[in-house]
Amino acid sequence: MSELRQDPVSQRWVIIAQDRENRPNEFVPTPVERVAGKCPFCAGNEEETPEAVALYATGRATPHQGTPATWQVRVVPNKYPAVRSDVNGPVRTEPFGLRSSAAGVHEVIIEGPQHAVSITDLPPEQLRLAWLSYRDRLNEHAREGRWAYGQLFKNVGAAAGSSIEHAHSQLIVLPHVPTDIAQELANCERHFAEHGQGLLSTLIEKEQATGERIVAETPNLVAFCPFASRFPYEVWILPKRPASRIQHYAGDGYRSMATDEEMGELGSFVQEIVRRLEAVLNRPAYNLFLHTAPFDSQPYDYYHWHVEVFPRLTKAAGFEWGTGYFINPVPPEDAAAALRRQAS
Amino acid sequence: MSELRQDPVSQRWVIIAQDRENRPNEFVPTPVERVAGKCPFCAGNEEETPEAVALYATGRATPHQGTPATWQVRVVPNKYPAVRSDVNGPVRTEPFGLRSSAAGVHEVIIEGPQHAVSITDLPPEQLRLAWLSYRDRLNEHAREGRWAYGQLFKNVGAAAGSSIEHAHSQLIVLPHVPTDIAQELANCERHFAEHGQGLLSTLIEKEQATGERIVAETPNLVAFCPFASRFPYEVWILPKRPASRIQHYAGDGYRSMATDEEMGELGSFVQEIVRRLEAVLNRPAYNLFLHTAPFDSQPYDYYHWHVEVFPRLTKAAGFEWGTGYFINPVPPEDAAAALRRQAS
Repeated sequence: MSELRQDPVSQRWVIIAQDRENRPNEFVPTPVERVAGKCPFCAGNEEETPEAVALYATGRATPHQGTPATWQVRVVPNKYPAVRSDVNGPVRTEPFGLRSSAAGVHEVIIEGPQHAVSITDLPPEQLRLAWLSYRDRLNEHAREGRWAYGQLFKNVGAAAGSSIEHAHSQLIVLPHVPTDIAQELANCERHFAEHGQGLLSTLIEKEQATGERIVAETPNLVAFCPFASRFPYEVWILPKRPASRIQHYAGDGYRSMATDEEMGELGSFVQEIVRRLEAVLNRPAYNLFLHTAPFDSQPYDYYHWHVEVFPRLTKAAGFEWGTGYFINPVPPEDAAAALRRQAS
Repeated sequence: MSELRQDPVSQRWVIIAQDRENRPNEFVPTPVERVAGKCPFCAGNEEETPEAVALYATGRATPHQGTPATWQVRVVPNKYPAVRSDVNGPVRTEPFGLRSSAAGVHEVIIEGPQHAVSITDLPPEQLRLAWLSYRDRLNEHAREGRWAYGQLFKNVGAAAGSSIEHAHSQLIVLPHVPTDIAQELANCERHFAEHGQGLLSTLIEKEQATGERIVAETPNLVAFCPFASRFPYEVWILPKRPASRIQHYAGDGYRSMATDEEMGELGSFVQEIVRRLEAVLNRPAYNLFLHTAPFDSQPYDYYHWHVEVFPRLTKAAGFEWGTGYFINPVPPEDAAAALRRQAS
């Protein structure tokens, strides 16, 4: 039942190659070991990181300045930033391609004072605070007027590219909209112009109608394994209502902005999805990212903000890097069925 | 000196983020161990693989049928294929995206009878035969008229996605041109229409003029680290002359097809580049792939076939998968300088 499939949102092609899951592997991966030592993200070690730009304490969704005795979520500048806000300069066309200073903001959101590894080790209240802090940080950088897009993401485990174990997410804010986001927005816009209905709204409706790739739902959110999943057990989490961003947006009377209800459900729903992935796959390394509308003033009402989460079970290799194609050995219908069986 | 750069060929953006190379990593990767046991690709174990579709013996660039007592390069169908030639069917537009049977061909090219791991462990004569066998296989599948594109690639080491240690490459032949190739061709075509000169030809000229990213040259080939390298120590190997494919093409009197001189230099030049990568980086895992023109009858005379080779030093994580951006901690100018110093 192997197939080629193209995802309509990203236009990425995948090979759903069921027979390859059982091929032998003559290499034995030995688990990555953690170096014993001081964790720079644990409470009490705050001097190991740059000074906090925001702190959240229990029950408080608004950031504190300074260093209160207790914090539940702590946002700090990345000590080894990929981009920096103290450089500037336009994009220049040079003989070898476009080039500019690496302007941007790179922050780390530390998601608890205690040493937890995965978000499933955290109390739901901290996840609620974490998501509110992501929104706050996006708001803060959007307000500056200087940046175009904020990419929130999480790497859990060395195989997922993490270098620090303690539960944290990262935010990289950029001066232009990255290609993959721009491509998704363009595809959704074109679909809306052609069909008078949002592509992601239509997909959600159809996924709910067949049910075969649905993982779980809450009153306002839905999680499914996309038809052309590029990774095995990839899950998308979206609002049922078309809403293009989680950050502040008053341009259409807040209509295309995530509601407090949606945000309230999000932290524990993402946690529940990760719990099921960990139950089925024995706590794998995983990545998670948020796609939200750019910081500009368009409503993007043909778009849905969404979270993508995927365990790191396969490796992109020569074929994937050469073609942009992915090989996924687990049909998303099977992945969704396995994740549905883990309902608590 | 961190920068944002966009590659004009692929239009991919990268962050050249020099300061991140020295960030601490609290995980200690333990090397992948090889399971002792029978290697399915060593001479004498031919019954472990499907029957050969082509065999090359010393000094013979034309394939033998059957199983001669000695072979130097052996081509077999992949035992766990991602695509299969015994399925068929058109691409169907379905509610969730495009879908078709996973039609194609998936072959393995075993590059020597002895148990070598990297191509630097092989005699140059075997590499010459290997490249002639790649061309042969592309010719064979192009002739069938059923396929659109052949992706040749090599994964060396478990971190590069390899499951078998013995030196080999793979060929996946597909019924349509993959997105990344189509995008490169479109970008090169547009550049030619606008400037009357090939994008890759222009890049080569300019790289030769500055010299700062050049790694090495042969009479007919050049190797450089591209301006917007997505991976640290990424190297592209191209013919100096505009030639769009290594497979057979008579449509323009063979003008846009690789010459025997170019093919003759290619195997040992790729080997020399990998030798330098291994000297600088202590034999890292690496991937390699070939971009060659599609199987159709256009000359694509605005394109250069090329090889891309890159060690696996960084991991694509949440940011990269979410945005299509790459973070490369080693400026290609520094990588090229280090590789130039390894000249033998």
